[in-house]
Amino acid sequence: MLDKIKHIILVLSGKGGVGKSTVSTQLALTLAESGHKVGLLDIDLCGPSVPFLLGLEGHDVHQCEQGWVPVFSGADQRLAVMSIGFLLKNRDEAVIWRGPKKTAMIKQFLEDVAWDELDYLVIDTPPGTSDEHITVMECLKGVNADGAIIVTTPQEMALEDVRKEVTFCKKTGIAILGIVENMSGFVCPNCAECTKIFSSGGGVALAELAQVPHLGTLPIDPRVGALAGTGKACVTELPDCTTSLVLKSIAKSIGAE
Amino acid sequence: MLDKIKHIILVLSGKGGVGKSTVSTQLALTLAESGHKVGLLDIDLCGPSVPFLLGLEGHDVHQCEQGWVPVFSGADQRLAVMSIGFLLKNRDEAVIWRGPKKTAMIKQFLEDVAWDELDYLVIDTPPGTSDEHITVMECLKGVNADGAIIVTTPQEMALEDVRKEVTFCKKTGIAILGIVENMSGFVCPNCAECTKIFSSGGGVALAELAQVPHLGTLPIDPRVGALAGTGKACVTELPDCTTSLVLKSIAKSIGAE
Repeated sequence: MLDKIKHIILVLSGKGGVGKSTVSTQLALTLAESGHKVGLLDIDLCGPSVPFLLGLEGHDVHQCEQGWVPVFSGADQRLAVMSIGFLLKNRDEAVIWRGPKKTAMIKQFLEDVAWDELDYLVIDTPPGTSDEHITVMECLKGVNADGAIIVTTPQEMALEDVRKEVTFCKKTGIAILGIVENMSGFVCPNCAECTKIFSSGGGVALAELAQVPHLGTLPIDPRVGALAGTGKACVTELPDCTTSLVLKSIAKSIGAE
Repeated sequence: MLDKIKHIILVLSGKGGVGKSTVSTQLALTLAESGHKVGLLDIDLCGPSVPFLLGLEGHDVHQCEQGWVPVFSGADQRLAVMSIGFLLKNRDEAVIWRGPKKTAMIKQFLEDVAWDELDYLVIDTPPGTSDEHITVMECLKGVNADGAIIVTTPQEMALEDVRKEVTFCKKTGIAILGIVENMSGFVCPNCAECTKIFSSGGGVALAELAQVPHLGTLPIDPRVGALAGTGKACVTELPDCTTSLVLKSIAKSIGAE
């Protein structure tokens, strides 16, 4: 079902908690806001964040003749979303699965969702380089995936894990579209002093080292954090903030106008 | 080889990037500083952080008659450490393994490390509820594990994942020792204003809801962050900071004086 999709973008990170799902959902919303038909596939089976981030919790996935019908977001229905979160009975439920079962589920997500025609499919992945990632790479071999965006935070420990992710992309033959550095400084709302809580600049240095593009640097911005759960696009709600400018620039770099 | 260990403590989190490895290493250091023989086992195969956090990168694991000899930390050699990081040739190397191979490695970690006698074994896990966790739970069935400490950050998305982790513990029959809330506010070094960047209080509320103890609330403290890579114990370097007080209180709650 992936053959009617023009662009496939993977969003990866070595470490968890770096804001990968926030970048994935806001990038998908940015692309949808600029008039494209967009799909967002969440393959994090143990900790699916996309339904919560988009305010879609409690929505159900239905079956049609062509496969699973994704959940649509926004009044204009331009963003189609699929996540295991829609298949769980309640949000406390834990998916306690070993690899083979996870692999089967991800294959279904990639083969049995009735996305129909899409300009972009953004795939949000769990942290690491395990079953989920190997399966996605294998399933994407036949189709024309654009490549991967790697999200990281600036501290050294996170960057170590990004190096592993770069190795993974090279080994599995997926192009790296670039690195996004997230949480790169906090502007105190009281005194406007910017503190590099988790250090800074590591993403830029790493992009140079790995010879891949640096797609942008996102600050810690509680206003952007507050959009979690609303399904609202940062680029429309906070059009002038740094995050929006970086999101637009990433969208441009993957061919969206 | 786990039969000569008095206490086994698992450190879990639903989401990545919540500071689980920092809590694990600092808890292990706290226990060692108070005179106990401590082991720290890092079973995060894709993103092992413990060697970096303790400043032990580049150290090798050797074989002896009894099995793998762990790497010892500190002059007094009271902290024994095992991680896949010690088995990789270089730090860019990615472990691209499906579940069964990961399961085999974790079984080896649990069965073939020559810990000798230990007062405490702290097991640092990857985020989620997958192969690594199922394997650990199965291997620990025969021995007398104390239970799990769950680390979370205060924002709602992280708490969702903690609920799954609580469900996992209940399903697999491991006791929950309590919940630690991490990154619960940032004190601006310029104006001393405390901002709840990632919201706050969620860990306390969740502990009440799940009827498990709330073990403490840790702020974002760049001084503690700066200890990463040094192998130094927070309780000796910054004895009066909130993090040290919470660490001592957690150590006390698991029977250490």
